[in-house]
Amino acid sequence: MTTPKSRNITWSHSDVKRADRARRNGHRGAILWFTGLSGAGKSTLARGVEKALFERGCQTYVLDGDNVRFGLNRDLGFSPADRTENIRRIGEVSKLLLDAGVIVLTAFISPYRTDRDANRELVDDGDFLEVYCRCSLQECERRDTKGLYKKARAGEIPEFTGISAPYEEPLTPEILVQTDEHDGAACIAQILAELERRGILPATRGA
Amino acid sequence: MTTPKSRNITWSHSDVKRADRARRNGHRGAILWFTGLSGAGKSTLARGVEKALFERGCQTYVLDGDNVRFGLNRDLGFSPADRTENIRRIGEVSKLLLDAGVIVLTAFISPYRTDRDANRELVDDGDFLEVYCRCSLQECERRDTKGLYKKARAGEIPEFTGISAPYEEPLTPEILVQTDEHDGAACIAQILAELERRGILPATRGA
Repeated sequence: MTTPKSRNITWSHSDVKRADRARRNGHRGAILWFTGLSGAGKSTLARGVEKALFERGCQTYVLDGDNVRFGLNRDLGFSPADRTENIRRIGEVSKLLLDAGVIVLTAFISPYRTDRDANRELVDDGDFLEVYCRCSLQECERRDTKGLYKKARAGEIPEFTGISAPYEEPLTPEILVQTDEHDGAACIAQILAELERRGILPATRGA
Repeated sequence: MTTPKSRNITWSHSDVKRADRARRNGHRGAILWFTGLSGAGKSTLARGVEKALFERGCQTYVLDGDNVRFGLNRDLGFSPADRTENIRRIGEVSKLLLDAGVIVLTAFISPYRTDRDANRELVDDGDFLEVYCRCSLQECERRDTKGLYKKARAGEIPEFTGISAPYEEPLTPEILVQTDEHDGAACIAQILAELERRGILPATRGA
C-alpha cells in the first residue's frame, strides 16, 4: 500500500497550504464518511448537511455513490474487488478535496470495515469522521425508495448489501445517527453540533 | 463511454448548484489543463498561477502528476493503456472539483491528444482550457531538472515522452505559453489575463 507502482516520481507540496485555505474559509476541511444500508438516508442526509453548511458560508461537496459511478468509477461493478476499488478511489478523491479545504461528504454504502478504515488511515487524525446512518434492514426494506430491495429479493440484483452481500457495522463511528428514529432536521443538527465540538466549524454565537 | 458498467444507479444533483458556488466565491470554476513535455514547467507554472489566484481570493487546487500518482493512481504505470486511464481519472476528478466551484489546475504531460480531448468533452463549453506549455525538447533536456532525460537516454526509463514515447502537440489550445521564451511571471500574467477575458475571473480595476 505504501509504494506506488510508478517510479521516478517525487511528492511536491502546493505553495498554498491547508492552513491558508482554512484561514480564508473560516473553517477546517474534513471528510464526513456516511455509511449504512441502501435506503438508510445517507445521500439525503449528506445533502441536507451540505445545504446547512453552505448557508453557513462553508466550502462543501457531496460525493455520492450514484453520481461517482457515472464518472470516475464507471469501469467498476459490485463484486467484492470492485467495491473495494470503488471505495479506495473515493477515499483518495476525498483526500484531495480535503487538501483543497473542502468539507467533503461521502454517501456510499461502503459495507466493508477494512475499506473504511483504510480511508481513515489516508488522512491525519481528526480529518475523517465516520457517520454511521443506522437504520434497521426491516425499515430500509419497508421504505425501498428505489425499489432495489424488491429486485434483490427477486434475485434480479446479485450481491445486494443486506440481502445477498454483507454489511459490516462500524464499531466506533465518530457520529451515530439513528435515521429510523429521528427526522432529517434532528440528524442534521446533531452532525453540525459535532462539527462545532470538534473545532471543524467555529461555534455559533449563543450556542 | 456513455454507459456505466453498474446498473440500478440514478444521477442525483446536489441542492447546492454550481451557480450558487460561483456567486459565493466571486468567480467561476474552470479546469486549466496544463500539457507539455517533462521539464516544460507545467507544475511550476500551475503552482505560480494557483498562488496568484489564491491571493485574489479564489478557490483553487493543483492536481499534479507527481502527487496524484502517490494516491488515486498508484496502481497505474506508464504503458499507453495506463497513461490513458491515468488521464481519464484525472479528468473525472477535475470535473468533480469544477462542480465544487474550484479553479482546478492540472499539470500532467498528458501526451495523447485523444485523452485530452476526451476530458474536454466531459464538461461544458468554456469550462476546459488547454494550456500548452511549449518548450523545445532541446531546452527541456538541457534543463533536466529531475535528471530524467539523462536516465531515459541511458535506457533506464522506458517509454519516456519525447525520447521513447510520443508527445502529440495540441492543435488549438485555448492558451499557448512559450515557457522557453518567457519567464514565469510573464506566463502567469498571460494566463490570468486570459481568465479575465473569458469571464472566469472578474476584471481587475483599471486593467
